Amino acid sequence: MHAYRSHTCAALTAANVGETVRLSGWVHRVRDHGGVLFIDLRDHYGVTQVLCDGDSAAFAELEKVRSEWCIRIDGTVKARDADLVNPKLPTGEIEVYVRELEVLGRAEELPLMVFGDQEYPEETRLRYRYLDLRREAMQANMTLRSDVVASMRRRMWDKGFREYQTPIITASSPEGARDFLVPSRLHPGRFYALPQAPQQFKQLIMVSGFDKYFQIAPCFRDEDPRADRSPTDFYQLDLEMSFVTQQDVFDTIAPVLAGVFQEFGGGRKVDAPQDWPQIAYADAAKWYGTDKPDLRNPIRMQDCSEHFRGSGFAIFAKLLEQEGTEIRAIPAPTGGSRKFCDRMNAFAQKEGLPGMGYIFWRDQGDGMEAAGPLAKNIGTERTEAIRQQLGLGVGDAAFFLGGKPKSFEKVAGKARDVIGAELGLTETDRFAFAWIVDFPIYERDEETGEIDFEHNPFSMPQGGMEALNGDPMAVRGFQYDLACNGYELVSGAIRNHKPEIMLKAFELAGYGADEVKARFGALFNAFHYGAPPHGGCAAGIDRIVMLLADEANIREVMMFPMNQRAEDLMMQAPSEPSSDQLMELGLRVIPQD
Amino acid sequence: MHAYRSHTCAALTAANVGETVRLSGWVHRVRDHGGVLFIDLRDHYGVTQVLCDGDSAAFAELEKVRSEWCIRIDGTVKARDADLVNPKLPTGEIEVYVRELEVLGRAEELPLMVFGDQEYPEETRLRYRYLDLRREAMQANMTLRSDVVASMRRRMWDKGFREYQTPIITASSPEGARDFLVPSRLHPGRFYALPQAPQQFKQLIMVSGFDKYFQIAPCFRDEDPRADRSPTDFYQLDLEMSFVTQQDVFDTIAPVLAGVFQEFGGGRKVDAPQDWPQIAYADAAKWYGTDKPDLRNPIRMQDCSEHFRGSGFAIFAKLLEQEGTEIRAIPAPTGGSRKFCDRMNAFAQKEGLPGMGYIFWRDQGDGMEAAGPLAKNIGTERTEAIRQQLGLGVGDAAFFLGGKPKSFEKVAGKARDVIGAELGLTETDRFAFAWIVDFPIYERDEETGEIDFEHNPFSMPQGGMEALNGDPMAVRGFQYDLACNGYELVSGAIRNHKPEIMLKAFELAGYGADEVKARFGALFNAFHYGAPPHGGCAAGIDRIVMLLADEANIREVMMFPMNQRAEDLMMQAPSEPSSDQLMELGLRVIPQD
Repeated sequence: MHAYRSHTCAALTAANVGETVRLSGWVHRVRDHGGVLFIDLRDHYGVTQVLCDGDSAAFAELEKVRSEWCIRIDGTVKARDADLVNPKLPTGEIEVYVRELEVLGRAEELPLMVFGDQEYPEETRLRYRYLDLRREAMQANMTLRSDVVASMRRRMWDKGFREYQTPIITASSPEGARDFLVPSRLHPGRFYALPQAPQQFKQLIMVSGFDKYFQIAPCFRDEDPRADRSPTDFYQLDLEMSFVTQQDVFDTIAPVLAGVFQEFGGGRKVDAPQDWPQIAYADAAKWYGTDKPDLRNPIRMQDCSEHFRGSGFAIFAKLLEQEGTEIRAIPAPTGGSRKFCDRMNAFAQKEGLPGMGYIFWRDQGDGMEAAGPLAKNIGTERTEAIRQQLGLGVGDAAFFLGGKPKSFEKVAGKARDVIGAELGLTETDRFAFAWIVDFPIYERDEETGEIDFEHNPFSMPQGGMEALNGDPMAVRGFQYDLACNGYELVSGAIRNHKPEIMLKAFELAGYGADEVKARFGALFNAFHYGAPPHGGCAAGIDRIVMLLADEANIREVMMFPMNQRAEDLMMQAPSEPSSDQLMELGLRVIPQD
Repeated sequence: MHAYRSHTCAALTAANVGETVRLSGWVHRVRDHGGVLFIDLRDHYGVTQVLCDGDSAAFAELEKVRSEWCIRIDGTVKARDADLVNPKLPTGEIEVYVRELEVLGRAEELPLMVFGDQEYPEETRLRYRYLDLRREAMQANMTLRSDVVASMRRRMWDKGFREYQTPIITASSPEGARDFLVPSRLHPGRFYALPQAPQQFKQLIMVSGFDKYFQIAPCFRDEDPRADRSPTDFYQLDLEMSFVTQQDVFDTIAPVLAGVFQEFGGGRKVDAPQDWPQIAYADAAKWYGTDKPDLRNPIRMQDCSEHFRGSGFAIFAKLLEQEGTEIRAIPAPTGGSRKFCDRMNAFAQKEGLPGMGYIFWRDQGDGMEAAGPLAKNIGTERTEAIRQQLGLGVGDAAFFLGGKPKSFEKVAGKARDVIGAELGLTETDRFAFAWIVDFPIYERDEETGEIDFEHNPFSMPQGGMEALNGDPMAVRGFQYDLACNGYELVSGAIRNHKPEIMLKAFELAGYGADEVKARFGALFNAFHYGAPPHGGCAAGIDRIVMLLADEANIREVMMFPMNQRAEDLMMQAPSEPSSDQLMELGLRVIPQD
């Protein structure tokens, strides 16, 4: 017989009754039924009930084992009494009578119980991650993550992509976040950087003629910690293709993601790729107050400025006299009660706005009545025009925010989320996707008036060089995001592969040719040697697994995450270097105050 | 029609004749046949011949294109004349008459030609890697690497393993090489390290109950450069299993590797896993002079000390009076000529030894004669005894090295290689594998007499605690390598998962409990909470691809390698950090002399 097991703890069924078997695993739970000892023996695959009594030579030893001891037992498979069969367990028809025991690994008193679902502070969980990971939910999350990544890989190969590995110790590649630096020992005083993304490398792979690239790529950004972000490294499904248009990229990645969500979504509805709308960035802001709208929520905001211009509601009427202002309505079907409206108004105030005006429509016996202070101020006719524009009726409400869109859009978007959730308008058990397209290439700093790249500097402007010779703020890029349930899952672009357009694009953002060559030299040089048109995208793997696992914290879907202070409590990182190490690297630590 | 292509450059056949098609690719070669322009248009998939003459509106533009311009053409598929059909090319039956041309990416004068097989200095190749990678051999190497990794993954999944990702920014984990350090911004003065291997993490994954882990894992070692080693990062197929013996690990990885070598070996013979010998470390040294023997070479060395003890060959006879000395024979079938023997003797001298004694056997008409100075000195009887021991005959030779094995074994191993190759004894077109087992746990420093770990400190000693209570130098580990054609492909062990045995093992090597806790704290702590017996191994992916691609330089099988001074010439890494970056990290660079 094998030294440790003849079967896993999920394998034995009624068909094995009478067999002598060997099992190894962890003591999940011990129950002492007066002279009969029941142990749930657990391994990665399942649980098998083993039992022992005084007739067995192993009894005395088995009485000593405690939770989470790792043991090996030999025994005989027995059928359970009919009334003791556990239909929920694959091994629920049998139990194993223990004849021999070997303790493989003893356990000290546990800082964290594996059995049961007691909550523990995150610090405890991370310090004893090897115990935390034994818990059922974590086993499920980790295997889910592994399966999702494998499924992505298979789907990418099926689409004719190959996976190529790009360097991890490389050059600084400014992409908006901070680099992690790696001091060079062979070149003291000089540093490598860990890639924020393989962006330049994947573009260079296209210039190298590989046509289709993907990689499950580790990315490194030295960012300040946040619940849904790892403070150090995270993974992307990164892809790039040559000789493609934006729509080709969509047609490639959409079925991959839809397939993954279908495969692992546990029956939740997954919108079909052909139904994923393409929403212009500007429209997304107008309709949803965000560039990552949650389309499970049917609410779409509307511009109601005209109804308030010169109206009796002085606050809005005056606001509209300023340039660039607007009154935005958030329709709230079924939200037509003063209580709900007041609660939403309070929400807006908590978010830092003066409040949200509202109107709600109720049945007055002899007809519909529009209630709320706003309605009174602007009068019946305007109120009715608003109602008709928004398509609302009795029992519905609408909220209004005014000012320059940038000042209220974010709160409006949040309000839309809350309204959708509170009124039960937002579907649950669904993954709703939307492409956000036509991102502006540039944004203008409101204070300095200076122009900078809105997103990243690698995207091809729609209209090419010609567009760049016009108004920079009007230039849109072949640049896109994929939103799902309010999260950005994918970001990508058709790249700017023409050196002269690249120089011009940077020039508009205030970067001279020398700076382009210094910061993006490899790419810029490569584009002088027959660069193909190319584009691609990257999908956030941790985020996708979080959505599938229904987790809000990225640390629930990573094997060994850092805590929010970017420390690994189990491994004790970061730590002080030795003076020899510093010496070799030619570095000195500046004492901190 | 699609914006860039209706077909790839490998797709068109006689079946497409008459069709209007669109192709995109690179100008591989231009030939001007007096008014008719032939261009080999190349993409990742293949080459299509396109042509044009003055009748086409595109002619004037097409005349301007040069090597490696990226272009798009529209044209009509024509059948080639029967005598111009190229049966070597999938598209060899057709050509495309160009009617329209779009230049997608112009190319400047090339520092490196893609067409043809001119050699270029490595610095040029690495600086213009995007051109170098377009060459046929590099395209083949990179796709081979990608396919090998995918095949490994598939095979591991088929064996019930899941891939789990371990941290890249983590704690220093001493494994014999230098760590790359990463300064922490949030904790100035403290450093992370990049993992030399996921060793501790994979063991922690076993303690976490995941049963079977693998990962295509990037490993980082700050090592001094060498041709077959990347100076920064390299990849391993890393795996670990719980509840296994050494043989289980062999039975898992052997078919995976054999499968990969069969799949990509291009018909070269691959020894079947059941035929891979298990050779004790001590025997490997005796027989082959190395722990990574090339078993394509049938030569096995033998101890011939007894024949020289007290013999007339004074040098050896005296040598043998010292303790620990030995005379080792390298049999050389078919090497029986003075010319060859002298050449090998000179080889040994070049390697720093005084030389190799030899005997060779020749036909003297009336029988066999043993020739060479050695034979004369020791006399016929001893010579004949040696011949019989070694199983040699007329036309064969044997070489002899004497002293303490450590002083000559390395050269003996090399001599065995040279003899095997020069005499044509070493098979080519074969992958010959051997497990090297029973590594000693400890080695003794000859000068200080101190004991240290021979390999890594994680292996379980054979015999457990009991063995550690005996002579440390006699302790063997459940530790193994896999050798293939003279390279170490795999290294692994059954791990020491018992904290008390771990402490004892370290104690023998001179490490106190405090040091164990400080250096391997996570693992040591985890072993106190029900650790399962576990073991595994890691296979060097770059090395495997090198063997399959028949390349001697690791840079031929990596997409964007560093040069031998650990610089990326294309990306310009490492580079000087900004003073802001240093400030944020709390570091100062010490000026170098």
